[in-house]
Amino acid sequence: MPLPNRWLTACLVRYEGHTLLIDCGEGTQITMRRTGWSFKSIDCICFTHFHGDHIGGLPGMLLTIGNSGRTEPLLLVGPKGLRRIAEGLLMIAPDLPFPIEYHEIESPDEVLSICGVRVLPFRADHRVTCYGYRVELDRLPKFDPERAKEQNIPLPYWKHLQQGETITDGDRTYTPDMVLGSPRKGLIFCYCTDSRPKNTIIEGARDADLFICEGMYGDPEKQKSAKEKKHMTYVEAARIAKEAEVKELWLTHYSPSVVNPSEHLELAQQIFPNTQVCRDRRETTLRFLDE
Amino acid sequence: MPLPNRWLTACLVRYEGHTLLIDCGEGTQITMRRTGWSFKSIDCICFTHFHGDHIGGLPGMLLTIGNSGRTEPLLLVGPKGLRRIAEGLLMIAPDLPFPIEYHEIESPDEVLSICGVRVLPFRADHRVTCYGYRVELDRLPKFDPERAKEQNIPLPYWKHLQQGETITDGDRTYTPDMVLGSPRKGLIFCYCTDSRPKNTIIEGARDADLFICEGMYGDPEKQKSAKEKKHMTYVEAARIAKEAEVKELWLTHYSPSVVNPSEHLELAQQIFPNTQVCRDRRETTLRFLDE
Repeated sequence: MPLPNRWLTACLVRYEGHTLLIDCGEGTQITMRRTGWSFKSIDCICFTHFHGDHIGGLPGMLLTIGNSGRTEPLLLVGPKGLRRIAEGLLMIAPDLPFPIEYHEIESPDEVLSICGVRVLPFRADHRVTCYGYRVELDRLPKFDPERAKEQNIPLPYWKHLQQGETITDGDRTYTPDMVLGSPRKGLIFCYCTDSRPKNTIIEGARDADLFICEGMYGDPEKQKSAKEKKHMTYVEAARIAKEAEVKELWLTHYSPSVVNPSEHLELAQQIFPNTQVCRDRRETTLRFLDE
Repeated sequence: MPLPNRWLTACLVRYEGHTLLIDCGEGTQITMRRTGWSFKSIDCICFTHFHGDHIGGLPGMLLTIGNSGRTEPLLLVGPKGLRRIAEGLLMIAPDLPFPIEYHEIESPDEVLSICGVRVLPFRADHRVTCYGYRVELDRLPKFDPERAKEQNIPLPYWKHLQQGETITDGDRTYTPDMVLGSPRKGLIFCYCTDSRPKNTIIEGARDADLFICEGMYGDPEKQKSAKEKKHMTYVEAARIAKEAEVKELWLTHYSPSVVNPSEHLELAQQIFPNTQVCRDRRETTLRFLDE
């Protein structure tokens, strides 16, 4: 339920000029305008599930993206039924200047290549079919120019080898391992709402640099409500973060009854110290190690 | 297009515990929460037309009304196609705890009794079928207790006669004119967006105490854009207000290109002096004459 100073939960991931939006409740486009982020570069919107607070802003968002001058296709990803529901909502946005493509998740083992990153949906446990999303960005191994020179590899091939390609030139073959160092850790981001705790979430969040997870209630006395409504408490989210060995946990998607999200935060921090609360428009930049 | 500090246009009319909403764009429910108005008392939502900025907030609004504990039916009024479009949007709000009734306007001569007032839709002139709404509230003639006493009318009948009812008691018949004074002016409110100027709007706004009208552009140089996009300039709205002899004109529904709505206001005021600009959450109370 959108409150005057706490709007509906959504998440925007940007990478090299591409924008991936996860969920789009009522007001998401207004928040985006406040932050100044580009509408035109939204290539994909992933939906966790089809409750109104996660998809109600779709028609307005697409109309605004249309006004931004986008003509390239836009991909919608979500549980089965996505096309039917989106087409219902889009009755009020019939003349978009860009085509919409749909990808309905058939199984939780899918790996999607979107916006230059890998997107891996995983099953959550809510009142309706719901997915969390793991986003992975690889980091290329370090290129060693000294080794390339020693082996007399022509300069024009360096870039291709660095990208992992194999080059054949006459009877000579150049392979990436000739010039690349050992594998380097990439970046992992994980987003999960709405759900009860579930092992699939632990796997989806495994080793994440940032894990954004719902925490409907901070007060442990609300444990019963959380269970009934198929949501989580802060403490439950912190246990997942600990188990998954993530670096940082951000809590979000608070109940309207939670007036001050920082209350009871320390209970979660006792389990997973790097637990933080989200406020509207919170942002961060994830960087490769030592970058 | 919703801007961070200027949201989509909508209008809420309250009368004796009833609430009538006209249009419901994305974010209307958030504004309502800021103003503190009651969701539960919304008995009717009238739509001018089905562009996204006027109806996109419907599913979220109905979900929130549902959360408010309403179980009484809620009436939706709008141009033909209303049910089809609303049912599309309501795919994300499938389990509302109150029934929805639909009234699709068949002709512009309809008079609807809603929320204790008369609602008269009239045709506007936009890119799609669009209606303005005239809202009329009668004022009963003054009751004269001295005349009632002189004619020995029993006290229990006074209230009924005052409400305009005729009472028969044995062989005596009591009629309202026996105790009521001359007719008194009621209240008239008129709301019109989006439209080009049109005679039906003048009739719809005739003698209104308050006329809220779109003014997409203040700058007279935008006259051509207004015409092309089927909107109005401030000056065009002021001409209607003058012609309809309204008491007060509020301009609304500005283009995103209008940074300061007060700019060019004086051009409209030269035509209709009591022209004012709306800002978000502007409100007023209309009162009967001498009340």
